[in-house]
Amino acid sequence: MNLLENGLNFNWSGALELIITNGLKIILLIIGLMIAAPLGKKIISKTITAASNKEKISQGRIRTLEKLLINIYSYVLIFLFIVMLFGIFEIPVAPLLAGAGVLGLAIGFGAQGLVSDVVTGFFLLLEKQVEVDEYVTAGGYDGIVEEVGLRTTKIRSFDGTLNFVPNREISGVSNHSRGTMRALVDIGISYEDNIDEAMAVLQTICDEFKENDDRFKEGPDVLGVQSIGSSDIVLRVLGQTENMAQWAVERDMRKRIKEAFDAAGIEIPYPHQVNVDKT
Amino acid sequence: MNLLENGLNFNWSGALELIITNGLKIILLIIGLMIAAPLGKKIISKTITAASNKEKISQGRIRTLEKLLINIYSYVLIFLFIVMLFGIFEIPVAPLLAGAGVLGLAIGFGAQGLVSDVVTGFFLLLEKQVEVDEYVTAGGYDGIVEEVGLRTTKIRSFDGTLNFVPNREISGVSNHSRGTMRALVDIGISYEDNIDEAMAVLQTICDEFKENDDRFKEGPDVLGVQSIGSSDIVLRVLGQTENMAQWAVERDMRKRIKEAFDAAGIEIPYPHQVNVDKT
Amino acid sequence: MNLLENGLNFNWSGALELIITNGLKIILLIIGLMIAAPLGKKIISKTITAASNKEKISQGRIRTLEKLLINIYSYVLIFLFIVMLFGIFEIPVAPLLAGAGVLGLAIGFGAQGLVSDVVTGFFLLLEKQVEVDEYVTAGGYDGIVEEVGLRTTKIRSFDGTLNFVPNREISGVSNHSRGTMRALVDIGISYEDNIDEAMAVLQTICDEFKENDDRFKEGPDVLGVQSIGSSDIVLRVLGQTENMAQWAVERDMRKRIKEAFDAAGIEIPYPHQVNVDKT
Amino acid sequence: MNLLENGLNFNWSGALELIITNGLKIILLIIGLMIAAPLGKKIISKTITAASNKEKISQGRIRTLEKLLINIYSYVLIFLFIVMLFGIFEIPVAPLLAGAGVLGLAIGFGAQGLVSDVVTGFFLLLEKQVEVDEYVTAGGYDGIVEEVGLRTTKIRSFDGTLNFVPNREISGVSNHSRGTMRALVDIGISYEDNIDEAMAVLQTICDEFKENDDRFKEGPDVLGVQSIGSSDIVLRVLGQTENMAQWAVERDMRKRIKEAFDAAGIEIPYPHQVNVDKT
Amino acid sequence: MNLLENGLNFNWSGALELIITNGLKIILLIIGLMIAAPLGKKIISKTITAASNKEKISQGRIRTLEKLLINIYSYVLIFLFIVMLFGIFEIPVAPLLAGAGVLGLAIGFGAQGLVSDVVTGFFLLLEKQVEVDEYVTAGGYDGIVEEVGLRTTKIRSFDGTLNFVPNREISGVSNHSRGTMRALVDIGISYEDNIDEAMAVLQTICDEFKENDDRFKEGPDVLGVQSIGSSDIVLRVLGQTENMAQWAVERDMRKRIKEAFDAAGIEIPYPHQVNVDKT
Amino acid sequence: MNLLENGLNFNWSGALELIITNGLKIILLIIGLMIAAPLGKKIISKTITAASNKEKISQGRIRTLEKLLINIYSYVLIFLFIVMLFGIFEIPVAPLLAGAGVLGLAIGFGAQGLVSDVVTGFFLLLEKQVEVDEYVTAGGYDGIVEEVGLRTTKIRSFDGTLNFVPNREISGVSNHSRGTMRALVDIGISYEDNIDEAMAVLQTICDEFKENDDRFKEGPDVLGVQSIGSSDIVLRVLGQTENMAQWAVERDMRKRIKEAFDAAGIEIPYPHQVNVDKT
Amino acid sequence: MNLLENGLNFNWSGALELIITNGLKIILLIIGLMIAAPLGKKIISKTITAASNKEKISQGRIRTLEKLLINIYSYVLIFLFIVMLFGIFEIPVAPLLAGAGVLGLAIGFGAQGLVSDVVTGFFLLLEKQVEVDEYVTAGGYDGIVEEVGLRTTKIRSFDGTLNFVPNREISGVSNHSRGTMRALVDIGISYEDNIDEAMAVLQTICDEFKENDDRFKEGPDVLGVQSIGSSDIVLRVLGQTENMAQWAVERDMRKRIKEAFDAAGIEIPYPHQVNVDKT
Repeated sequence: MNLLENGLNFNWSGALELIITNGLKIILLIIGLMIAAPLGKKIISKTITAASNKEKISQGRIRTLEKLLINIYSYVLIFLFIVMLFGIFEIPVAPLLAGAGVLGLAIGFGAQGLVSDVVTGFFLLLEKQVEVDEYVTAGGYDGIVEEVGLRTTKIRSFDGTLNFVPNREISGVSNHSRGTMRALVDIGISYEDNIDEAMAVLQTICDEFKENDDRFKEGPDVLGVQSIGSSDIVLRVLGQTENMAQWAVERDMRKRIKEAFDAAGIEIPYPHQVNVDKT
Repeated sequence: MNLLENGLNFNWSGALELIITNGLKIILLIIGLMIAAPLGKKIISKTITAASNKEKISQGRIRTLEKLLINIYSYVLIFLFIVMLFGIFEIPVAPLLAGAGVLGLAIGFGAQGLVSDVVTGFFLLLEKQVEVDEYVTAGGYDGIVEEVGLRTTKIRSFDGTLNFVPNREISGVSNHSRGTMRALVDIGISYEDNIDEAMAVLQTICDEFKENDDRFKEGPDVLGVQSIGSSDIVLRVLGQTENMAQWAVERDMRKRIKEAFDAAGIEIPYPHQVNVDKT
Repeated sequence: MNLLENGLNFNWSGALELIITNGLKIILLIIGLMIAAPLGKKIISKTITAASNKEKISQGRIRTLEKLLINIYSYVLIFLFIVMLFGIFEIPVAPLLAGAGVLGLAIGFGAQGLVSDVVTGFFLLLEKQVEVDEYVTAGGYDGIVEEVGLRTTKIRSFDGTLNFVPNREISGVSNHSRGTMRALVDIGISYEDNIDEAMAVLQTICDEFKENDDRFKEGPDVLGVQSIGSSDIVLRVLGQTENMAQWAVERDMRKRIKEAFDAAGIEIPYPHQVNVDKT
Repeated sequence: MNLLENGLNFNWSGALELIITNGLKIILLIIGLMIAAPLGKKIISKTITAASNKEKISQGRIRTLEKLLINIYSYVLIFLFIVMLFGIFEIPVAPLLAGAGVLGLAIGFGAQGLVSDVVTGFFLLLEKQVEVDEYVTAGGYDGIVEEVGLRTTKIRSFDGTLNFVPNREISGVSNHSRGTMRALVDIGISYEDNIDEAMAVLQTICDEFKENDDRFKEGPDVLGVQSIGSSDIVLRVLGQTENMAQWAVERDMRKRIKEAFDAAGIEIPYPHQVNVDKT
Repeated sequence: MNLLENGLNFNWSGALELIITNGLKIILLIIGLMIAAPLGKKIISKTITAASNKEKISQGRIRTLEKLLINIYSYVLIFLFIVMLFGIFEIPVAPLLAGAGVLGLAIGFGAQGLVSDVVTGFFLLLEKQVEVDEYVTAGGYDGIVEEVGLRTTKIRSFDGTLNFVPNREISGVSNHSRGTMRALVDIGISYEDNIDEAMAVLQTICDEFKENDDRFKEGPDVLGVQSIGSSDIVLRVLGQTENMAQWAVERDMRKRIKEAFDAAGIEIPYPHQVNVDKT
Repeated sequence: MNLLENGLNFNWSGALELIITNGLKIILLIIGLMIAAPLGKKIISKTITAASNKEKISQGRIRTLEKLLINIYSYVLIFLFIVMLFGIFEIPVAPLLAGAGVLGLAIGFGAQGLVSDVVTGFFLLLEKQVEVDEYVTAGGYDGIVEEVGLRTTKIRSFDGTLNFVPNREISGVSNHSRGTMRALVDIGISYEDNIDEAMAVLQTICDEFKENDDRFKEGPDVLGVQSIGSSDIVLRVLGQTENMAQWAVERDMRKRIKEAFDAAGIEIPYPHQVNVDKT
Repeated sequence: MNLLENGLNFNWSGALELIITNGLKIILLIIGLMIAAPLGKKIISKTITAASNKEKISQGRIRTLEKLLINIYSYVLIFLFIVMLFGIFEIPVAPLLAGAGVLGLAIGFGAQGLVSDVVTGFFLLLEKQVEVDEYVTAGGYDGIVEEVGLRTTKIRSFDGTLNFVPNREISGVSNHSRGTMRALVDIGISYEDNIDEAMAVLQTICDEFKENDDRFKEGPDVLGVQSIGSSDIVLRVLGQTENMAQWAVERDMRKRIKEAFDAAGIEIPYPHQVNVDKT
């Protein structure tokens, strides 16, 4: 009887105490969750909106980033809620987490590249370092951007190759589609030609282009003697053109200069060598 | 007698309490497992299906990825269930896990490459960066893809070598089988030749190819004076061809240009040198 | 007397309780071990057999891998059993493991290379990336494989050197003994020669080889004008040969082409230079 | 009744004790927070102000740095307060944090680049290594600084490209806009020319520039025979110019020297070769 | 008196219990040690002996390795015994170890190179990758091995330099003293010479060497036309020689070939150039 | 009443015990602090003074280093005192620190570069590897040191660029301002000239410089035939000069040698080529 | 009264027990320390002495190493004693150490280079890899060793530069001052010269040096035809000289060979070219 009694009316007051304490803890936890969830989402939305206003990012992209961040936030919150609930009921989560830690370590080391990709991708988008259809050099690849993703950026090379570049490989971005580009032509004249005369011919051509070719935003102009080569005096012509027009402009200028030099009798010299005959 | 009594009717109420508490914990645990198992599988299936619809991955590949992910999920769930069961019966798993941790550290460092392989391989498949029979450059290897695995990608070089590339080595993929390819021919003419005349001859050839050769998707066309070389004026011809036809097309164009230049008397010059005799 | 009594009949019921509880734990542990041991071995055997069937690995190698994995599994099981036994008797293993952890960290960092070796070696064997007597390029070494071990692969260079390559250094394997190999000969003709005529001569040679030389599996054939060099027009001939026959075939073709060109009066030109005499 | 009594009047004194203890702890915590918050802010402000006075940083930048640091400080304080509050109510935060630790590890590895960016960026600003509109070489990029951010520095190359350089890539900064720059011209004369005579001509030109060209801050002067080349004796002229004027100055000097040498009959030699005719 | 009594006859039964429990633990520990110590040594000895039988390592080296491993094993055992003894007496070793852990981390990072050295050195010895007096290339150093240590390998370069190579730097070993070596001579003949005739002369020389020179283990033989150079047709001769005799053999063959070609009137051509005179 | 009584006179003796124990702990802690603080400072001062005496560092620099180290020491002491005080009052600092640990990990990884900078900078100063106004090569930068800081070293290149080098990038310092420098002139003479005669002329010049030029600390002297070039016999002249005078000295010697050779009729040859005319 | 009584005569027996237990622990600890301290020092001294006897290190250096190691050992012992003392009095050192751990991590990462320096420096000294006044190549620096420190090695380059090399940068040491050095002269003769005759002339010179020049320890001797160059037949002469005499010896041999070849009418040929005139 004593046994039964002991068994049946076991420490009810302790149980009650436990229930009350735990109940209070759970309520506190839920309140915390109810405050944290909308608060966090609001903060994310506001930060994104503020950032977008300042940086003038397109609405579509803002929504994408916002959704992504809120999703991550929700998952973390749920994970923490479950862990703490288990903790209140004293179901041992610590070993569970330690066990996960061993796995996590191996995975963490292996997957850090993935996190790097996403972090870099996030900033590529936020700081608008690259946009679709821009001509960039990034991660050793060179071409037109076809897609900027969180993990991978697709760049189409000029030879038609489609390059998939993990964002972590992009240590620095050279964006060739932001502003006017330089057109530069170096042309050698012979040692016997008069430098002033050659520069006058070049300047005439430059002036023609200035007047007639509206691809030029600035210049072109003759800079002077860039170097004294082993067989020629190198003159430099420089200008600023519309974006992506630099190559066509340089090709046109090269053709024009060759023809003008031919007309003016100025020689573009072949490599020279002085031969000393030994006797 | 007192001894025996003490021994036999030891703290039964405490034991009962323990049994009830633990029983409740186990039931809670099993319920958790029963919810988590199908839920997780469903989420995996749905995510994969959604991703596959969006990315249009073949059914076979979807099944492979789904099976792989569900397998991993199941193993993790079973591992956690066992760990927590042990925890409820207070069999010390913490030291066990700590011990495993020491091993795990050594293994984790050594095996991180393996995890990297699988993570990268997963995205190679999911993002369809490479497909079998495509011509790619990846991890310093160049050739036709024979197999894309979770750990290793097999690439057949054009010289017949079969390359086994661990996926982690693939930092960026250049896929040469996605779209039209560029055919580019640079050809030098002598300083004495008339540039306009040579460009006209080249354009005639380009027009012929445009009409008769349907391997060309765009062009070819003459771009202009690409550079003023030390012994020649370099002209550039550019077009877009069917994928993998670029080399044959370039070979045909080179032959045609050489023959047309011979016919038109335009010289493709040898290297020049001016000899000054010292006396 | 009170003292003695206290000392002698100390908390027997607690001791009894302890014995019963621990006894139960030990029994549970042994049962767990008795289930885990054969189960694990079975799983390993089955996995290996399944893998071997699929990949057609030789019986000897399967046995080696199986034995290795079962050994590792046994050691881990024994280690865990001892740790948990100590845990039940409350002999403090945690500090022991922590102590080992400090050592383990230093060793783990230093020995991770060893683990990398074994992991890579395991997959070299399992995925049959290299076999003995194959000609491979791996880890910067080039030659015939003499032995593939779990830690080191031995490669015999063609100059007679025996290279010991730690498996971790093998980031990618180029296996030159899997399938037909390419035979490729580039040959230059002079600017004055007729391209069609030269290609006809080359194709005649190719046809001869096709008929008479069964080392060729495909081709050889003339591809066309590969490049316009500074002093010659380069033509390319390409075929597929038996494995390892590619070098002998190329040597034979080079000899044959030289002789045929001599007979047909087609010049293989020396480097050219145009001399302009300055006066 | 005994049951009820037990349940209702459970350990009130313990609860009271708990409340008092915890209340005291919370009060202590809040006091700590109230001291730490303004104190920390004050220390940050003062440090920044002191640093700014010493380094003469613009007011705008000081405010930016101050706000950034106070923000970080506030977030850390709030995070710690919450964690300790939870700890006082014995809501298990340790597992929570351990769980976060597993995540944190993965993120920490992936995001360390971000922290590196900010740390380096902070010192770029504080130590004023680069300013907007300066010409620098940093992280392999070369050009005019357009913006120095905490994460990214924007450098405009001279060819018009806009480079986004993550600050962590900037291992050393070469700032070309801090002080006078060197103008250096190397000019070769023939073996037959008199060295003293040539150096006299060069010094005359140098003296002209010294008098007439106020872009020169020091020199230019003739240094002497820099090297005995295979075909010429190389003389060196050196001076210090205004910042960014060095290239124009060098171009002007090259032109002037060429003209003066022509006038004085001093030869700038072509490469020489002695020809031995074999008989 | 009550006080004194309390103080003096404090919980004797508890103390007794403690003593008995701890005594049992210590006995268990000592038994464990007494089993582990000889068992471990036996396992080490047997493993080493087994390994040595299989690999045929010299007796001296086996003893060295055995002694080293048993030493390490003993130190670890003693360390663990002390730690666990402290644990039984509840002297707090955990903080001690944690403290050591902080130190250990710093040291571990710094000293991992040392561990790497020993691990690599151990396998260099065990796998007999290098032996004293062999000619090897390892870690970028090239020469005769003078000593293989656990930490450092000493290599004497052919120029007399003594190189100390930390074993960790040895990522792969090229051992040039294991088997016959290749003797290879490439020789160019002029375009005008008859290939068959030249190959016949070379084969005659090869046959002479085969008969008279017992340094050759295989060959030498003429392989054929290795390449068509810009000025010559390159023929290749190949053979297998005694180890380290390859250089002397090649020198002798070169001299013999030059003399035979002179006798047979076959030209080894100088670089050729075609001169086109521009008029 | 029972309730109240229970509540009011709760475990006073326990509280008293707690107060006494904690009081003792706090006193012990304060005593520890009071001993550690001045002791540590004294040790730092003495160490610095001792080091400075031995290394002869300037007083200003000693003060800087001393202040820096004492500051760091004080902050660490205060941090530890607060942590331990919290620990005595059982305010849970462990989770706090664990939380900080997660942050700390991320920051630790990111900021380790900063610590590296300071550690390296400390030794740069202490070991006096570089001083202001010395000419050094460090971290790939070359020039005059303008400032050595704890984080950054400023080096002024000879072209006027100011380089900011983070100290961690300085893996080795080449200090060119510590002792006499070498002046070395290599000069080629023709194959036809008499070597002894040319060496006599050179030695005469060397003797002139020895007598008249006190920039030379040792030599110069003729060493002999440094190499047999493809067109000349190269002779070497070597001497030791005052620091930073080496370039001017070399320039003067080159000029003198050229003039003396011209006077003595010794030829400094152009590149030679033997022309074989094919008929 | 009950209250007071309770407060005053609180658990004295417990306190007594505590004092006795702790006293015992402290005594045990001190005994441990008293055994460990001299024992450790003895072991260090003996090991060092043993090592020094075996390696014949100078007495001064042994003392330095011994003092360094005993110092480190003492600090570690004191640190551990304090930590354990705190642990006995239950002053919470664990959080303290954890706190230090966060700092320690950051510092550990940053300072690991320092530990690497000392570890490498220790072995540089112990294994006598470099001695003062030896000519070595280490860490990319080349010159005479001026000082070997635990952290830094000072190497004086031949151009007078003083290099400070952190020991960690020294991955392998090439010591050029350990034994005889090789003197090697390669000399080309023309295709027309008789090889046997030229080798006879060279051997005569070698024999002269053998007899008259005691800087030679072995040889010199003529090896044979080292290579068939594009314009010459290269012969090799090889010998072993006194340490550091190799350069002077080579210079003397070059001069002697040139003079002997001139006397014997053997040509050292200039580069050759065959000119084919196109008509």
